[in-house]
Amino acid sequence: MLPVELTDATDAPVCCSPLVREPLSAAEADDLAHTMKALADPARLRLLSIVAASEGAEACVCDLIEPVGLSQPTVSHHLKVLTEAGFLSRSKRGTWAYFRLVPGALDRIAQLLAAS
Amino acid sequence: MLPVELTDATDAPVCCSPLVREPLSAAEADDLAHTMKALADPARLRLLSIVAASEGAEACVCDLIEPVGLSQPTVSHHLKVLTEAGFLSRSKRGTWAYFRLVPGALDRIAQLLAAS
Repeated sequence: MLPVELTDATDAPVCCSPLVREPLSAAEADDLAHTMKALADPARLRLLSIVAASEGAEACVCDLIEPVGLSQPTVSHHLKVLTEAGFLSRSKRGTWAYFRLVPGALDRIAQLLAAS
Repeated sequence: MLPVELTDATDAPVCCSPLVREPLSAAEADDLAHTMKALADPARLRLLSIVAASEGAEACVCDLIEPVGLSQPTVSHHLKVLTEAGFLSRSKRGTWAYFRLVPGALDRIAQLLAAS
C-alpha cells in the first residue's frame, strides 16, 4: 500500500501536497521512505520505465533481462521489490512471469511530492 | 527484444512523463536514482516537510533538531544530503544556518514520475 492518504477533493481546499503542507509524522515518513527506496535504484527505475513503455504497460521478464544487462536472479529481485512496493503487479502465463504497471501508483507518489 | 514504444516519432503531443513514455537510459536512471535516494530516508523526508511547512518555506537548523529527535550532527548531515540533491538551499545568518525549500525541486521529481 502507498503511504499517506491523499486529501479528498471534496474536502476544504488545501494549498498543496501532504509533504509540503505540514510536517510528516514519523510513521508517515517511514512509509513514504520505504516506498521511495523501491524507486531509488537505477536498475529498478530502468525496469519500471521499460515495463511502463511496453505495449499495454506489460512486459515478460524474459524481455527485461537483456536491456538492463543484469542476471535473471538480479532482475527478478528488483521486480519483486517493485511489486511489493505496489508499482508492478505480477502474473504467470505459461513458463514466464509478466509484470504490469499498477495504474495510479506512480501518480500517487507524484501527488505526494508535488508542491502545488 | 526492446519494448514497443507508445509514442510516435512525430511531433505529436507527448502522452506522459519521461519515466513512463520510454525506457530511461542508464545515465538518466543513475541521475534519478541518486536524487530519489536523497528522499528515501524517513528523517530526510521529515526534515524536508518541516522546512516546507515552515513560514516562508524556511527554517533554522536550530528549530529542526528537536522535532526529529536526532543529534545536531546527524540532522546537519541529512540537511547536507538534501541540499546537495537540490531540494534545499542553505544560508547563514548570524550563528545559525537556515534552510529553504528550493522552488520547483519537488515538482520536477513529481513530473518525472507522474504517468499522465
